[in-house]
Amino acid sequence: MTASASPEDWLAALRFDEQGLIPAIAQDARTGTVLMMAWMNAEAVRETVRTGQAVYYSRSRARLWRKGEESGHVQQVHDIRLDCDGDVLLLKITQIGGIACHTGRERCFYRSLDLNGMQPAWAVQDPVLKDPAAIYGHPHPDKR
Amino acid sequence: MTASASPEDWLAALRFDEQGLIPAIAQDARTGTVLMMAWMNAEAVRETVRTGQAVYYSRSRARLWRKGEESGHVQQVHDIRLDCDGDVLLLKITQIGGIACHTGRERCFYRSLDLNGMQPAWAVQDPVLKDPAAIYGHPHPDKR
Repeated sequence: MTASASPEDWLAALRFDEQGLIPAIAQDARTGTVLMMAWMNAEAVRETVRTGQAVYYSRSRARLWRKGEESGHVQQVHDIRLDCDGDVLLLKITQIGGIACHTGRERCFYRSLDLNGMQPAWAVQDPVLKDPAAIYGHPHPDKR
Repeated sequence: MTASASPEDWLAALRFDEQGLIPAIAQDARTGTVLMMAWMNAEAVRETVRTGQAVYYSRSRARLWRKGEESGHVQQVHDIRLDCDGDVLLLKITQIGGIACHTGRERCFYRSLDLNGMQPAWAVQDPVLKDPAAIYGHPHPDKR
């Protein structure tokens, strides 16, 4: 097998950061809503491709994070895109359960900067669809 | 003025990384297309809010990067969202000129992982809309 046909040439195109991580944006394939951004290491990228479900790397837990492993809210991956610099991934997904965020909301980007007051302020825009305690059976740590 | 009314409480909600940066995703406000992801430091976030146009921090040039400063392809910002952990921003924008990527494409995510071959491979999906040399008048460095 020649170097140009190495099975992981596609992975070599990725530029991981000093911690060996790359940001991965998850976008709803049907609506285009940006649901979340998390991080992947090389193993998480491989596992995402192998299984067809999003696998991230949890920085807080320092291990692979198979999205939905506790909540059941897995992400079926339809398309993986890479940016011009090779240092950001974009996933088109179907969010099972309709909840991507550990707060029980559809998406993590539920706060919007309100510029109408004396000072800018973050305003919660999106409803909690399901109590996180009912999703996880216990308080849930940050996804970081 | 009390601490709770500090003019930069909104900025204090952001969790910048060890380099003082936060990822910012730019999404087309009309179509929902994710155009790019770049980085902001606190000054870039302030300038984005102040001017209503996206200002990033260029890691390669180690300075503020007023998107479109060379190309004219500025990004008008309509909405700024913050994620649950406070460590990612999402901007809804109008991309002037219709070109976000320094390669002359609409978006930076122009490569898609093709899983139909013997091995996965990145396939270019999106056309170059304008020759970068015509946009910049010279070869353009990475946006990093």
